[in-house]
Amino acid sequence: MVLQTQFADIKGNDLYIDGIKASDLAKQYGTPLYVMSEGHIRHQMNELKTKFMDKYEKALPLFASKSFSCLAIYKLANEYGIGIDCVSAGEISIALRAGFDPDKIYFHGNNKLPSEIEYALSHDVTHFVVDNFYEIENCEKIAGKLGKKVKATLRIVPGIKAGGHNYIMTGHKDTKFGFSSHYGIYLKAIQKILESDNIEYEGIHCHIGSQVFDLFAYVNAMLQFMKFVNEIYNTFGVVTSKINAGGGYGIAYTKQDEPLDFESITSEIMKVIYNEYDSHGWERPAVMIEPGRYVVGNAGITLYTVGCIKEIPDVRTYVSIDGGMSDNIRTPLYDAKYDGIVANKAGETKTKTVTIVGKICESADMITKDLPVTANIMPGDIFAVFSTGAYNYSMSSNYNQLPKPAVVFTYEGESRVVVRRQTFDDLVLFDEE
Amino acid sequence: MVLQTQFADIKGNDLYIDGIKASDLAKQYGTPLYVMSEGHIRHQMNELKTKFMDKYEKALPLFASKSFSCLAIYKLANEYGIGIDCVSAGEISIALRAGFDPDKIYFHGNNKLPSEIEYALSHDVTHFVVDNFYEIENCEKIAGKLGKKVKATLRIVPGIKAGGHNYIMTGHKDTKFGFSSHYGIYLKAIQKILESDNIEYEGIHCHIGSQVFDLFAYVNAMLQFMKFVNEIYNTFGVVTSKINAGGGYGIAYTKQDEPLDFESITSEIMKVIYNEYDSHGWERPAVMIEPGRYVVGNAGITLYTVGCIKEIPDVRTYVSIDGGMSDNIRTPLYDAKYDGIVANKAGETKTKTVTIVGKICESADMITKDLPVTANIMPGDIFAVFSTGAYNYSMSSNYNQLPKPAVVFTYEGESRVVVRRQTFDDLVLFDEE
Repeated sequence: MVLQTQFADIKGNDLYIDGIKASDLAKQYGTPLYVMSEGHIRHQMNELKTKFMDKYEKALPLFASKSFSCLAIYKLANEYGIGIDCVSAGEISIALRAGFDPDKIYFHGNNKLPSEIEYALSHDVTHFVVDNFYEIENCEKIAGKLGKKVKATLRIVPGIKAGGHNYIMTGHKDTKFGFSSHYGIYLKAIQKILESDNIEYEGIHCHIGSQVFDLFAYVNAMLQFMKFVNEIYNTFGVVTSKINAGGGYGIAYTKQDEPLDFESITSEIMKVIYNEYDSHGWERPAVMIEPGRYVVGNAGITLYTVGCIKEIPDVRTYVSIDGGMSDNIRTPLYDAKYDGIVANKAGETKTKTVTIVGKICESADMITKDLPVTANIMPGDIFAVFSTGAYNYSMSSNYNQLPKPAVVFTYEGESRVVVRRQTFDDLVLFDEE
Repeated sequence: MVLQTQFADIKGNDLYIDGIKASDLAKQYGTPLYVMSEGHIRHQMNELKTKFMDKYEKALPLFASKSFSCLAIYKLANEYGIGIDCVSAGEISIALRAGFDPDKIYFHGNNKLPSEIEYALSHDVTHFVVDNFYEIENCEKIAGKLGKKVKATLRIVPGIKAGGHNYIMTGHKDTKFGFSSHYGIYLKAIQKILESDNIEYEGIHCHIGSQVFDLFAYVNAMLQFMKFVNEIYNTFGVVTSKINAGGGYGIAYTKQDEPLDFESITSEIMKVIYNEYDSHGWERPAVMIEPGRYVVGNAGITLYTVGCIKEIPDVRTYVSIDGGMSDNIRTPLYDAKYDGIVANKAGETKTKTVTIVGKICESADMITKDLPVTANIMPGDIFAVFSTGAYNYSMSSNYNQLPKPAVVFTYEGESRVVVRRQTFDDLVLFDEE
């Protein structure tokens, strides 16, 4: 078992998060509970700041906020001076409400709605990661109407495939995202932008996938992108002033995962970019990266209460907890692996193998299969699942009409609710009576 | 293409739902929009009533409300006098708010929380589909404390595997649901209940899976359950007075699916049960069935607005719509197949093959692959996806901070909002400022 964050540890027989006993958090706030170590998030944001933003001129890390989006996270990102990547007007609206500087927001998406483009521009969010020709048309029209200028970074399909699961690989040819580099398609897009009155060409964007553990894939993609930069220069005489190198940095869900070192990734990326630009005597570009899971993934620990324990002779032991695929759909959706521990018996030897399932009426509802736990596990115990900070709360549903859990931030021995637990009344809040 | 409900049809170049032009609904309520044909739902509920409930003595169809749970659906079920199957205290709370008779609510779940058991009993919901020994203990304690009696139907694993997808098969041996029939485990459970002061033994419950198209699987499971009934009688001298035959009746998502006839399923099930009971001279039992998808699945048509259309040379054409896996996660989750049509060009010949994807920033976000559509499809068109009534709204999330679509019921030329569309403000309703 790996705790996967230095902000959690085991003392005696108990799991602690940011110095607070996990079972005390469960008692105080109830379960299921999304605990997010603010200590861990701050540590990661500080890495982005000190090892990338402060280290290179015109470097801006963007937190990919779709991984964990709520008011509190935008406020934290703001504190560190980093930017964010938003994928909808909804995300932008929350970021702005949190006081985020519109100039540090980058608007992503394969199908930005005209209404979203209008929303973004009228709130001075002008950095667009432009995905397609229809978007160029819409930007041209809407920016013109509003008297705004879109600053465009073009998403180009890198043609490089990386990442753990079929569903979370975005870099290859058959993808809904971005402009193809085949048949000069992305060049036609840049031409349209160069001809446009209301869109400025700034740069190109690359994303090779999620949960990537292969440094070579990043280097390779950047080398590919330097070819694009050259092709753009040779075609239009324009030096690309912005390179967005995307994200997808893999984190450890279990001890099988071996994450790359953050600074190794960024320094390799920067090396490729600076080498190329320096060799031409071009002014070095602004560089963005877009980590999401890297910032929040390992910060999350979901606490559940153990209920029914069912031993099926010759088959397996099922341990049911009081949440499930409504608060964490990643296991059924991506066949994700999770590690976990009985938080109030964390010091005990693990001699029993169990499968942790949820309380949702559906066979798919599983958290983790064949996990070693203490043989002493019993109803009422607090079960902690690690690395649930990314794509758990953000993908949560009210399936089976389970109220969504609260989100609690922990930091230096203190805890606070950042999203309150839903009640039964909340389940029909939008229903007409 | 199949419309999959008699309550939708194509007139001229337009799709109509319950007599209303789909594109008018889109205009009036916006997109994405969950349209639910109340005509279809009423028709299906009427089938349950006339072809099962009214046809057999002591027969009660229970609508499996996890498939589509909101105030309006419980009110409709109430009108037809049918019962419901609830899988959480949350679902029960909504049913009661809708005025549902607690005596017609059956409480399901592999891990009913003590707090849920207390909630149910204190609201006079006493019919429990009992799943495990821990639940028996909790029921005994909590019912005793409240001075209530639990009426127990035991869920027994039928050991028969049926249904379309690994995730939605629940009848085999390796399942989190129910009591095993091996090693006499379910008999031990009945013994505990017979010895209990606060739990009454009423019957047994069988569920073989979802999206089942095999009549023989139902017959076979019932034959198996009649063996259990005999074994119970031989062991305890008790005649089982209630048989819950479960649900899982497959519906047509595409023309490849060939649903069983409802009356054929129920009459075969009843034949097996009555034959057995009559042969012993036992009083015929009360019989329940639990269709969910069968009632609401084909009633749902989701309307989207077409946005970006991306032709990737030599690969495929992606058509992006303004929703996605946040309103319909079934394609990425179960590899589900959907059929659809351009609602405002419904009469045109389909000569183009496209892949319909959502606007969520994720490769998994796909609605349907390789679908024939009119070659004339363009941004601004209304795209209708059929058979989205079950497990779409109920599993919906705010992933990418997309507000949840409204749910509109259509009936005899009229439409009404039953769940209103979320706003950006709603996205932070539970956030602490």
